[in-house]
Amino acid sequence: MTGTAAPGPGPAPTGRMFIGAERTAGSGPELRSTDPATGEPLEPGYPAAGAAEADRACALAEEAFDAYRATPAEQRAAFLEAVADGLEARTGALVRRAHRESGLPAARLTGEAARTTGQLRLFAEVLREGSWQGARIDPALPDRAPAPRPDIRRRRVPLGPVAVFGASNFPLAFSVAGGDTASALAAGCPVVAKAHEAHLGTSELAGGAIRDAVAAAGLPEGVFSLLVGEGPGLGQRLAADPRIAAIAFTGSQRAGLALARTAAERDRPIPVYAEMSAVNPVVLLPGALAARGAEIGRGLAASLTLGAGQFCTNPGLVVAVEGPGFTEFLRAASDAVAADPGATMLTPAIAGAYRQGVAAARGRTGVAAVAEGASGQGPAGAAAALLSVSAADFLADPAHREEVFGAASLVVRCGGTGEAVRVLRSLDGQLTATVHAETGPDGTGPDAAAARELLPLLERTAGRILFDSWPTGVEVGHAMVHGGPFPATTDPRSTSVGSAAVDRFLRPVAYQDVPQALLPPVLRDGNPEKAWRRIDGALTRD
Amino acid sequence: MTGTAAPGPGPAPTGRMFIGAERTAGSGPELRSTDPATGEPLEPGYPAAGAAEADRACALAEEAFDAYRATPAEQRAAFLEAVADGLEARTGALVRRAHRESGLPAARLTGEAARTTGQLRLFAEVLREGSWQGARIDPALPDRAPAPRPDIRRRRVPLGPVAVFGASNFPLAFSVAGGDTASALAAGCPVVAKAHEAHLGTSELAGGAIRDAVAAAGLPEGVFSLLVGEGPGLGQRLAADPRIAAIAFTGSQRAGLALARTAAERDRPIPVYAEMSAVNPVVLLPGALAARGAEIGRGLAASLTLGAGQFCTNPGLVVAVEGPGFTEFLRAASDAVAADPGATMLTPAIAGAYRQGVAAARGRTGVAAVAEGASGQGPAGAAAALLSVSAADFLADPAHREEVFGAASLVVRCGGTGEAVRVLRSLDGQLTATVHAETGPDGTGPDAAAARELLPLLERTAGRILFDSWPTGVEVGHAMVHGGPFPATTDPRSTSVGSAAVDRFLRPVAYQDVPQALLPPVLRDGNPEKAWRRIDGALTRD
Repeated sequence: MTGTAAPGPGPAPTGRMFIGAERTAGSGPELRSTDPATGEPLEPGYPAAGAAEADRACALAEEAFDAYRATPAEQRAAFLEAVADGLEARTGALVRRAHRESGLPAARLTGEAARTTGQLRLFAEVLREGSWQGARIDPALPDRAPAPRPDIRRRRVPLGPVAVFGASNFPLAFSVAGGDTASALAAGCPVVAKAHEAHLGTSELAGGAIRDAVAAAGLPEGVFSLLVGEGPGLGQRLAADPRIAAIAFTGSQRAGLALARTAAERDRPIPVYAEMSAVNPVVLLPGALAARGAEIGRGLAASLTLGAGQFCTNPGLVVAVEGPGFTEFLRAASDAVAADPGATMLTPAIAGAYRQGVAAARGRTGVAAVAEGASGQGPAGAAAALLSVSAADFLADPAHREEVFGAASLVVRCGGTGEAVRVLRSLDGQLTATVHAETGPDGTGPDAAAARELLPLLERTAGRILFDSWPTGVEVGHAMVHGGPFPATTDPRSTSVGSAAVDRFLRPVAYQDVPQALLPPVLRDGNPEKAWRRIDGALTRD
Repeated sequence: MTGTAAPGPGPAPTGRMFIGAERTAGSGPELRSTDPATGEPLEPGYPAAGAAEADRACALAEEAFDAYRATPAEQRAAFLEAVADGLEARTGALVRRAHRESGLPAARLTGEAARTTGQLRLFAEVLREGSWQGARIDPALPDRAPAPRPDIRRRRVPLGPVAVFGASNFPLAFSVAGGDTASALAAGCPVVAKAHEAHLGTSELAGGAIRDAVAAAGLPEGVFSLLVGEGPGLGQRLAADPRIAAIAFTGSQRAGLALARTAAERDRPIPVYAEMSAVNPVVLLPGALAARGAEIGRGLAASLTLGAGQFCTNPGLVVAVEGPGFTEFLRAASDAVAADPGATMLTPAIAGAYRQGVAAARGRTGVAAVAEGASGQGPAGAAAALLSVSAADFLADPAHREEVFGAASLVVRCGGTGEAVRVLRSLDGQLTATVHAETGPDGTGPDAAAARELLPLLERTAGRILFDSWPTGVEVGHAMVHGGPFPATTDPRSTSVGSAAVDRFLRPVAYQDVPQALLPPVLRDGNPEKAWRRIDGALTRD
């Protein structure tokens, strides 16, 4: 199977969900996605899951868990690759449907489809490399005094069935077959996915690729289910289900915190990985502004308006030190924002919340409207907005720190780097923090001292720090961190993008004096899987 | 400095706590430890910390954090070794005081002191080895199409100040200078320790060693504080303090869950690592009973009565398949328990709870008192107890699953391995699960099939699985897992013993296109620290 989209129309959405292998209608009220460009409800309707359907999906996941986690890593790797192949074969249909449901351009969605299959193949690599198991062996020391040391070996095992909540803003890469699902399946955890109401058809098409791959691999059907239902009802049901062992979520702070609360109040609390809100501060230091203020302004506008500003890492706050170049920066950013043709947001509701958020921000003390773009057409049309405020006014009202989801950014004018530091210190946890600085390759440029001072503060604030760049691109690799201190996420100890995302769904187990024949292969003498292991603390592949 | 105790009486407790470098009295009511052998309150009294003292300790910890975390790993390693040296110099005084406060024998406490210094030195090794930083580098790909890849590097940074709650049952190794403190300090987190009320003097002596090492290393004084106070009041205060970034606790389920609740309800929730209750099931399979029933019985009694049964991993539940050898097992265990001379428990209150727990267990439907040892002397004296119950009765009443902290064990008589599996399935999460089985070295013995069937179940139940051994010994190494599914702990993704305990206090941060001169050394080109790093996913030291 290669990377080309299948010819022809491809599969069409049927209005059904998947409970294990079964393609079925829910017993609840019918839900429909909306075409954000027209406001029209889209065919087909999806009868929503009630309690019985959620229960069956969780029961199947629990039933499948032991058999699935016992599959060799190679089998799971091949399965993930088969999911990627299946998605690739549906690329045309997925992109067409996602475009109608999300309003995102086809080119962007084609790129997102490639990212989605790339993620699945990355986790296949992770499985084959073997370090994900975290194998450690402390061999027996029978002659140790005063007491012999037993043989102790450790690996990581999967937590159990994971409930995955698709995000609205990446209908492919952060949704049904996205990074959360890929990393949970890689870890050996069955997945019960909840389709996002905004892209039900896309969800069904992607879910079908997973369901077909499960069947083709001969895996237990409960390895994957896809449920349709309204967020609060179905979401709370899944978070409370005793068979669900972890939650992966990307979305609003309100919904993420509701899931975290339910998970904490269970008889047996479970981990919640909720990636929520952030304003992703961008700091503009004086040397950078003086050297390339206009270029930075154009860069900001491009990052801000990308994908109608609907990125978790959208630069919603610019902390700029006034001085030479600041005027050029603001003018270039204004010109670019004013020239923006506008865009269709993901849903009319999201666009409405965006317009309200911009209006509220504009109404706050000291806020000036710097520039506004043209509005996109239709009920989900929105206009990019650039606002500004003084540092003193910003610090006086915590409401300035609230995220406006969409293409709006607030420039905070600071009298010096000291004031910029105060603004940054006032912020909650963030996914990203960006610095534009003239540091020179050897760290001796005009902004180097200020950048050095900022770094420890930014390390405590954000999961990713960027220099002279823009945060909207999130590479899928080994070193990426898409995460950060609360409330950017509910758990700063992890990333939801990149190969380390698999760590979220694993826990360690030690085996003491367990006979060789009963040990999992990765812990056996002779290292049959040729995995990296820590023997008496030292990494080796022997 | 060698492993010998200092001559002479050594330092004496003064009734003061440490707020940073300052040795000071609290503003609250005076607390005293009790000699469990006599019930007499011990001198000196410790005026407890009020809100002001807790606030100062947390403020100092926060102030110290950035400077402390920026220290090179080698400096922190030398600091941990200096703490170990200081404790060694005080071994005589520590053991004498801990013996008076805990009733534990001096020989056991001398061993525990060696374990405590060993832990500190292990984390010094971990720091020097460098993998704790989790360094990863995805180098830039400027020619990648359709878009270049930026340079992305990742390391782990400490979470922030950690509140450590000392455990009653290991006054040295799991208390003020124990594993939680050692791993948090290794990670770069300042520690605010709460002394356990049962061993205030021991806590002061151990805390003094840390405080002196902080001063000698020229570190900011806030790196370590030791507070004295009543558990619920001071504990809740620390858990709610906005400057505390994580909690490490070993103790009762009630206290652990109260801390977890407070931590979850904060404006900014924080991770809680609470190691709580477990009954640590031991499964006796028919082949093992037939081959060595009496030996297993003697082994159980020895493990059960070790340290007056006050181990987190004490074998409180034995799941035995009746058949040949069962009678010999039960007789040998009974004889050994009946011959036990009794012991002094940690406090009169703990002994009282133990006696109540045994009486309640005895009163439950179907429970037979199999054997009782002699009672130890004094108000904290206790007698070992062996009880038994049928599997049917056990399964009928969840109260049989409750932990009795102390030297009591309940033998569940099962008609076959199927019934044993049902008993095991009824259990909550556990620290350990032990199997006695005749498997043969190649996995073909009479119990091999049953053991193979049990393993997946035990992996889901416990953090550590032992074969033909006893769970009370917890080795401090690289492969140890002292942890497990809820309610054994609040977070099954970690261990509180062994080198991996440092992972609890770290979170990842990515650096995108950050100039070389500003990068942390472990991420710089040329690998100046010679640490293991993942370059494009592949582990290397280059």
